[in-house]
Amino acid sequence: MANQLAGIPIAMLGCDEREVGLAAALIDLGTDLRLVGFPRGGLLKRALHFEDPKEAVKGAQAIIAPMSNTDAAGWITAGMGPRETAINLVEVIPVIPSETPFLIGVAKPIIRGLATQYGLVLVEMAEIDEIAVLNSIPTAEGAILVAMENTAITIHNARCLVMGLGRCGTTLAQFLLGLGAKVTVASRSSQDLARSVALNCEPLSLADLKSRTDFQIIFNTIPAMVLPRSYLRLLDSKTLIVDIASGLGGTDFEGARELGIMAIHALSLPGKVAPQTAADILIKTIPHLLEKMLGEEHHDYER
Amino acid sequence: MANQLAGIPIAMLGCDEREVGLAAALIDLGTDLRLVGFPRGGLLKRALHFEDPKEAVKGAQAIIAPMSNTDAAGWITAGMGPRETAINLVEVIPVIPSETPFLIGVAKPIIRGLATQYGLVLVEMAEIDEIAVLNSIPTAEGAILVAMENTAITIHNARCLVMGLGRCGTTLAQFLLGLGAKVTVASRSSQDLARSVALNCEPLSLADLKSRTDFQIIFNTIPAMVLPRSYLRLLDSKTLIVDIASGLGGTDFEGARELGIMAIHALSLPGKVAPQTAADILIKTIPHLLEKMLGEEHHDYER
Amino acid sequence: MANQLAGIPIAMLGCDEREVGLAAALIDLGTDLRLVGFPRGGLLKRALHFEDPKEAVKGAQAIIAPMSNTDAAGWITAGMGPRETAINLVEVIPVIPSETPFLIGVAKPIIRGLATQYGLVLVEMAEIDEIAVLNSIPTAEGAILVAMENTAITIHNARCLVMGLGRCGTTLAQFLLGLGAKVTVASRSSQDLARSVALNCEPLSLADLKSRTDFQIIFNTIPAMVLPRSYLRLLDSKTLIVDIASGLGGTDFEGARELGIMAIHALSLPGKVAPQTAADILIKTIPHLLEKMLGEEHHDYER
Amino acid sequence: MANQLAGIPIAMLGCDEREVGLAAALIDLGTDLRLVGFPRGGLLKRALHFEDPKEAVKGAQAIIAPMSNTDAAGWITAGMGPRETAINLVEVIPVIPSETPFLIGVAKPIIRGLATQYGLVLVEMAEIDEIAVLNSIPTAEGAILVAMENTAITIHNARCLVMGLGRCGTTLAQFLLGLGAKVTVASRSSQDLARSVALNCEPLSLADLKSRTDFQIIFNTIPAMVLPRSYLRLLDSKTLIVDIASGLGGTDFEGARELGIMAIHALSLPGKVAPQTAADILIKTIPHLLEKMLGEEHHDYER
Repeated sequence: MANQLAGIPIAMLGCDEREVGLAAALIDLGTDLRLVGFPRGGLLKRALHFEDPKEAVKGAQAIIAPMSNTDAAGWITAGMGPRETAINLVEVIPVIPSETPFLIGVAKPIIRGLATQYGLVLVEMAEIDEIAVLNSIPTAEGAILVAMENTAITIHNARCLVMGLGRCGTTLAQFLLGLGAKVTVASRSSQDLARSVALNCEPLSLADLKSRTDFQIIFNTIPAMVLPRSYLRLLDSKTLIVDIASGLGGTDFEGARELGIMAIHALSLPGKVAPQTAADILIKTIPHLLEKMLGEEHHDYER
Repeated sequence: MANQLAGIPIAMLGCDEREVGLAAALIDLGTDLRLVGFPRGGLLKRALHFEDPKEAVKGAQAIIAPMSNTDAAGWITAGMGPRETAINLVEVIPVIPSETPFLIGVAKPIIRGLATQYGLVLVEMAEIDEIAVLNSIPTAEGAILVAMENTAITIHNARCLVMGLGRCGTTLAQFLLGLGAKVTVASRSSQDLARSVALNCEPLSLADLKSRTDFQIIFNTIPAMVLPRSYLRLLDSKTLIVDIASGLGGTDFEGARELGIMAIHALSLPGKVAPQTAADILIKTIPHLLEKMLGEEHHDYER
Repeated sequence: MANQLAGIPIAMLGCDEREVGLAAALIDLGTDLRLVGFPRGGLLKRALHFEDPKEAVKGAQAIIAPMSNTDAAGWITAGMGPRETAINLVEVIPVIPSETPFLIGVAKPIIRGLATQYGLVLVEMAEIDEIAVLNSIPTAEGAILVAMENTAITIHNARCLVMGLGRCGTTLAQFLLGLGAKVTVASRSSQDLARSVALNCEPLSLADLKSRTDFQIIFNTIPAMVLPRSYLRLLDSKTLIVDIASGLGGTDFEGARELGIMAIHALSLPGKVAPQTAADILIKTIPHLLEKMLGEEHHDYER
Repeated sequence: MANQLAGIPIAMLGCDEREVGLAAALIDLGTDLRLVGFPRGGLLKRALHFEDPKEAVKGAQAIIAPMSNTDAAGWITAGMGPRETAINLVEVIPVIPSETPFLIGVAKPIIRGLATQYGLVLVEMAEIDEIAVLNSIPTAEGAILVAMENTAITIHNARCLVMGLGRCGTTLAQFLLGLGAKVTVASRSSQDLARSVALNCEPLSLADLKSRTDFQIIFNTIPAMVLPRSYLRLLDSKTLIVDIASGLGGTDFEGARELGIMAIHALSLPGKVAPQTAADILIKTIPHLLEKMLGEEHHDYER
């Protein structure tokens, strides 16, 4: 099977270990890889390294920004290479030709706006179902690691609450059960509560949350204010809250602090706790995605 | 909380153990219950029993036909009461007032057509997400029971293929793993394959099915011809196929027979292997559903 | 590695599918195999078949009686070959030279006495730790199969009691948990109760058994009267008892019958529910055991 | 049920959080508790606090030294109270009357010798079966925590080797499987290898260890040199070794260092990673043990 990515110019802007792994894989696939903010040793010697991102993206058929590490103002702060200024996507995006695939973990509003304005094909990698489900594995392990490090009890036999039974909640509930925890799942969805029964969890309608306050560890995956002060006030102060919901999370962190409850907002866990696994997920999915996206252009290109 | 179903006239037409359980629960809730084809002893003494279904549905604010046991011609064949003629829904539906909720496990095309024609509010109970997920539990156990009864090996350590990772496939994979099977999941969906990885299964793209033929037990949940003769031919004749997909299943059963492969189409498992659990699922969900559906009318009624 | 069993004369007396499997494996290993009461087709054509067990054992360096199917009077009743009289070990043992290894599943007292009297090296295969642990797998599955077939509920979410946490109890508890049951373990041993906690079961001191009567399924593995009428009387009559303890079991079966409680004494499950797996266990362990036992004689023989 | 420990004088020498928890429980039971090296606040105000351990043990009917934190020379170094000199058991033991129960986690040789010499009833708490099994829970979680913190991969899907299937190995294998690891168990015992099969692990005879070198994480529980340099040399340098075997462990740590393999000797995990759970284990077991040991004397006392 011929490798459809061979010779294709691709630019990557900024990295942590995950993008370094992906870059190595793309080099192995024979892409014409252009890197900004990457280490220059090892296998990555075989790529072109740029200082100026605007130079790097010239002629690239796809642009890959990092999974994490972009801020609200559009700066990419990730980079393992020689200390240099961060990359300002606000300046870079306008020079990318329209129709170009632009991959990024999660697009902050400013990036989404610019991508639309300049006609880029925006792909939020973290939202791709396959990647999101696979990332739920290191995310769940990371959440458990945070809980282990911040409690004086074992996960085994601990009364745990998992809020939300989406991709992360499902994997997290499964792993907690695997360690012998007593797991309750809170959700608004009667279907998800039924699934939690099948999984051997105790179902708890989110509307009835206040009826149960005896949890030792609460894991939240719902990105909405589901743990307000009015509920926190009912908890034992030794309860640990591990909130892995994106954005602002679902906890009144200020309220928790005042009540003496430890509440940790743990984000970007895959890259932190299992960067190699997280890199493997990108390596397994992104080249395939690029092949599909570049398929037609590539054929044009060869003609 | 006042019970909103008290005094409400409801008709139930035909039963197996599940509907008997549901009827008892509806009596406990104080409904004005009218039964056709039910046993008349025990708690069910307190309901009105009819011979003629057209009489029974008169004035009923909701009609409940069985989860299983309706045939393609619209006859309800279930019934534990004194031997009587089966109930012909083709004759009953026209006398039901339009807008009346009409609940049935799965509606055969003829029923669906009549429900539309006469303006009934058709509810297929087996398709309600909550019920479908809960039913996946006895379904999965039933599929495993069928496999245990028809193989000379243990499920433990058996190479099992689960085709499809929907509601039943997910629960089935989980239970097989719980018994120590080696589970491969075949699916068209990359998201479902990612979930199968999280679950500790081996993922297998349905497109690559022919690359793997060493399964000892194949469980199919996909209602489409996914196990054609061209694949069956590659299997060891000792392979067991347990097909729980609805309708015609996904197996070329004729081909299997000719190849000497045992293929079992196992349908309606919850009612067969765990009728009490299956009844409990209805008891837990249907009254609540009726309350929601009848809520407004009920209020009208009380005025 | 040279096969140490090649050419060694071994006699097997009586069979079910397990001994047929073992015989085939011993033929593959090149033993000089003599069979009584076996089918004569397939691979077994290559063995010598005898009508008279006393002829068969002449000169044999080891004798293998069946895993199951010997009665209290010393008769082997197993046999898949042409209808013939059962084998009377009381007549056979006296003609076996002393020091000869004599393998049998479980030796009834009469067999044990004769083996001692005639100086045989008696090996009870079912008591060999490795075999006993491996057999716990089909035994546990068989016990679950019996429970599935005799209850109207799912194992999932059922309140189960496992009495005894030995080899079978441990595997059974593990499988029940894998299917989502709520498992309590009753034991006299504080160490076993601690292990049941690690396994995610509820521990219950056997001394406190009467404090808990709300089980839906009771599995007994303790070969002593642990479920006397005084306890059975406290149970709901819908409770199912599956007793897999050897000998007389641990249940007052007569009492259960009178109280209308279904109590099933399920013995020899591996050969019944998973004969191929049970055969594989013998194939994996017995040739190795014979090699060790015959090792020295074998060397003598070669000189 | 009357509390048999009420009024009984008991001395505790040195503590970490576990002994603090146990002391609180003994106070609740009404013992006449004498403490050396303990914090003096909270519930512990109600005990007598001593500076001089020789004073504290006078008249005590049982002495409790810590689970951990005694050194080879017989000094107890644990203590959360005001900074003071460590306790020298070599000086304390001679003043304890013979026949007195003397409880300590693990007795170093010097302590064992003195206990024998002065006729104490030595109880090594960590060796009590019930405690050892319960402690395997926080130990296994601790080992997993160490692995999570020191690898770039997830436990899920990691190729793990567990060496030894004793109390800790069994719990560890169970938890690793619960997180989705691929677990191989290495053991000398064919019975333990059979158990590992039942548990869904891959069995590996310790004699064949060199045949398998592709592990990503190796957990050792065998207190003997089972991971010598000759084996370490065959491993990928990214392999992580977590050795939880007591004493010197089972790894050539010097060899690992030279080969660039990270090998961590993780001891006393329960007290470190889950001190509250570890305290609960003592609270659940030690008072009961003391009741049994002091039973007769107590009865004497009451007369």
